[in-house]
Amino acid sequence: MKYIIGMDIGTTAAKGVLYDLNGQMIISASRGYPLIQRKLGQAEEDPQVILDAVQKIIFKLAEKVQGEVAAISWSSQMHSLIGLGKNYEILTNSITWADNSCTNIVEEAKKNGLAQKIYHTTGMPIYPMAPIYKLMWLKQSNPNLFHQVQKWIGIKEYIIFRLTGKIMIDTTMAAGTGMLNLKTLSLDQDLLQKAGIAADQLPDLASPTEIVGSVSTEYVQKLGISADTKIVLGASDGYLSTIGVDAVDENHFALNVGTSGAVRTISPQAQVDQDARYFCYPASKRQFLLGGPINNGGIVLDWARRTLTLLNEKATVKDFLRLAKSAQVGSNGLIFLPYLGGERAPIWDANARGSFVGLTRQHTKADMARAVIEGIIFNLYDAATGLIESTKKPAAINATGGFMQSDLIRQTCADIFDVPIVTMKEQQSGSLAAMFLARQALGLNKNVDEIGRFVEKGKVYYPNQKEAAIYQKLFPLYREIKNDLAASYQKFRDINTI
Amino acid sequence: MKYIIGMDIGTTAAKGVLYDLNGQMIISASRGYPLIQRKLGQAEEDPQVILDAVQKIIFKLAEKVQGEVAAISWSSQMHSLIGLGKNYEILTNSITWADNSCTNIVEEAKKNGLAQKIYHTTGMPIYPMAPIYKLMWLKQSNPNLFHQVQKWIGIKEYIIFRLTGKIMIDTTMAAGTGMLNLKTLSLDQDLLQKAGIAADQLPDLASPTEIVGSVSTEYVQKLGISADTKIVLGASDGYLSTIGVDAVDENHFALNVGTSGAVRTISPQAQVDQDARYFCYPASKRQFLLGGPINNGGIVLDWARRTLTLLNEKATVKDFLRLAKSAQVGSNGLIFLPYLGGERAPIWDANARGSFVGLTRQHTKADMARAVIEGIIFNLYDAATGLIESTKKPAAINATGGFMQSDLIRQTCADIFDVPIVTMKEQQSGSLAAMFLARQALGLNKNVDEIGRFVEKGKVYYPNQKEAAIYQKLFPLYREIKNDLAASYQKFRDINTI
Repeated sequence: MKYIIGMDIGTTAAKGVLYDLNGQMIISASRGYPLIQRKLGQAEEDPQVILDAVQKIIFKLAEKVQGEVAAISWSSQMHSLIGLGKNYEILTNSITWADNSCTNIVEEAKKNGLAQKIYHTTGMPIYPMAPIYKLMWLKQSNPNLFHQVQKWIGIKEYIIFRLTGKIMIDTTMAAGTGMLNLKTLSLDQDLLQKAGIAADQLPDLASPTEIVGSVSTEYVQKLGISADTKIVLGASDGYLSTIGVDAVDENHFALNVGTSGAVRTISPQAQVDQDARYFCYPASKRQFLLGGPINNGGIVLDWARRTLTLLNEKATVKDFLRLAKSAQVGSNGLIFLPYLGGERAPIWDANARGSFVGLTRQHTKADMARAVIEGIIFNLYDAATGLIESTKKPAAINATGGFMQSDLIRQTCADIFDVPIVTMKEQQSGSLAAMFLARQALGLNKNVDEIGRFVEKGKVYYPNQKEAAIYQKLFPLYREIKNDLAASYQKFRDINTI
Repeated sequence: MKYIIGMDIGTTAAKGVLYDLNGQMIISASRGYPLIQRKLGQAEEDPQVILDAVQKIIFKLAEKVQGEVAAISWSSQMHSLIGLGKNYEILTNSITWADNSCTNIVEEAKKNGLAQKIYHTTGMPIYPMAPIYKLMWLKQSNPNLFHQVQKWIGIKEYIIFRLTGKIMIDTTMAAGTGMLNLKTLSLDQDLLQKAGIAADQLPDLASPTEIVGSVSTEYVQKLGISADTKIVLGASDGYLSTIGVDAVDENHFALNVGTSGAVRTISPQAQVDQDARYFCYPASKRQFLLGGPINNGGIVLDWARRTLTLLNEKATVKDFLRLAKSAQVGSNGLIFLPYLGGERAPIWDANARGSFVGLTRQHTKADMARAVIEGIIFNLYDAATGLIESTKKPAAINATGGFMQSDLIRQTCADIFDVPIVTMKEQQSGSLAAMFLARQALGLNKNVDEIGRFVEKGKVYYPNQKEAAIYQKLFPLYREIKNDLAASYQKFRDINTI
């Protein structure tokens, strides 16, 4: 029994990585699944389809080593909600973090102060992704369904339940429901009441390194593993992709940007923000994940590549980056707000939209391209400033994700954050950290800071002082434009829906 | 003596048109001259170079008809300032309307209320183009020069002075100095004092149809005309291009858009705006030209063609219009503020900049192209709304200028203004109206409304009610975005000048 599988249940795909007991990656596998969107703002997934994908990945990985798998541990998307009936049958799809159906409930909760109370009690930002708002919305919009549901769980809890028969949730995933009290690390009775549910309708709480148990006979066969293979509870992808790049304290931030992205750090104590700009999700009584997730990363780069370059849309990302690089640092004072897909941190406005502001006749296509990149990174920095104010300026930022695979982008990050950017040789930091949790569960490691020996770092990009100074002049203007346009987004929405 | 020459002294070129006594155009000629810009914001011209261009044009036109020219009449750019010494020698260049050197003086005058007083007394908008501000600036920045100057005149007065030896200014050009009292139609003593000059330092006032006199012997030869050719005083290009499209009362607006543009109408009484959005320049006690000049017309279209279409900048205007037309009316809710070159009416902010606001991932290059055109026209409409509020919604808008030579643009104007757009067969409305002034001076016509028989109208574009309704929903959002960003432009300037 010499192998560990780290499974990551993402929003668009599941990925599994097979490691040996020393933490060396052997092989990986992944399978995609569709988002279900039958109306605007809906974003659901079929739990059965995801279970099927997970099953096939594990089978493929285990086959490689004749089922010699000591443990399977889990990284997962956060904030999903699934209702199970009295026979544990599925009554709803998995309503994902990307679903905005309960927007009106959140607006109402903002007005009556409940949203602020939820944030200060649980560290859950004021945004429709949180299961607590989804519960309030389902209770109001579909009371029959709501009262049929016996258990409310998320996608990781569902998968583990199917494999082991146990309904358990780890602290980091429970934090993402908006019902876990930051001070007590237990469910908040007052908020449960507001959501209209009882504590026994939610999974049992445990630590991420908890061994849930073994896999049921049925699934031992389906997964091609051993009856002794242990299922480790695992944690949220946000927490794991942070410790997975060796950002285990306030000295390091983790910056992960692909299509969307996040900036995160780990604080030894619970902290919430006066302006509710960042989340605070506990992992344990000594580890609190602070951070801001952003919608507009590589997806905006891709829009700009299609829209700003050639008419025939054949320009590559490389072409676009070359164009951007040909413009001066600061894009001749052109400001781009990247909120093309609404935005979470730091503005938390699903109606937000993108803008170019400050155009003169001297601005070129290259300036617009560079402004897009600088705008995406200004937004990341803007999301990070709340963290910096509450903790400290980090010594380094450990960066991963598809958007970060460019010299221009890495250097611009270093210059805008004015902090060295450390690249990672391995991008699957979530699976790696899930594997590390299994090592802890198996007694092979003790403290979280031991994860560093499994993390291989790459090239470091240091800030250039001249460029950093230019960005320090531009960033206040970026923020001013952001504030100037904040009130308009609701009106754009109203125009579109008249 | 069967011919009349209408001369137009523009900002970048002089144009002359030779008409027969029935108002039929025979031939035209033009010559360009450069703007002198040795530092940012400066925009001067050499009066001698302009005189030379005018002389060559008249010679060429007169040659065609063996000098049989009954009269030469003038249309001219407004707001220029030239200082003459005690021997009438030139002490300054012609400081044009486009020169922003006295911006700080205007800012100060805004703060102490003088600018508001100037607007309400003279109808001159709060903007550095006005000679009254230029005088205050020269007095402060170059007192030696200021005290050497015996006469302060504009470019039309200079040309006519050189040809006839008389220093005279017509009412419409005097209105453009910011020192002509709207109520009395005479120079305002209080404002002259503020500018630091005496009334006898300015030209004598007369009506646009005044016959100044004959041409000096020297210039009779140089121009190739007769000693009997009469010089008619003429008027501002703003006034003449309005009556020159048969917009002689409040029922018609004149919309002229080339590189820059203006919307204008003629009111029987003086009117000023609470918000100082439009100018009010008297032509006589019964004719007041109300209007708004805009910087951002075809010049923005040209920027967008270069910047938004192909990388190699080879897309034509036609390509750009085709691209724009392929998007839906309203550009999927994307708003474009066209202030790429600062803006005069209706916001009067030389620091203003352009913006795209409201981008989503669904927006295409075609949406951006269409938003540019709609934004330019929203700005024209915005400049017109002050006039409409003070006068009435016109029955028709008579349109000229290079920007207006497109079906898409004409129809979009009709839909945004919700008023029929009447095109003109002849684009040289300024020269035509100058010719008409000469006919009045020669006793061939009496009232201004007789100009209609010389104006040939073309195709009419009627508003489509469905499209007009879409624009009536979008325009309030355009205005809101305009207001949201108004305070940021000063900061863009500060960033650039740090």
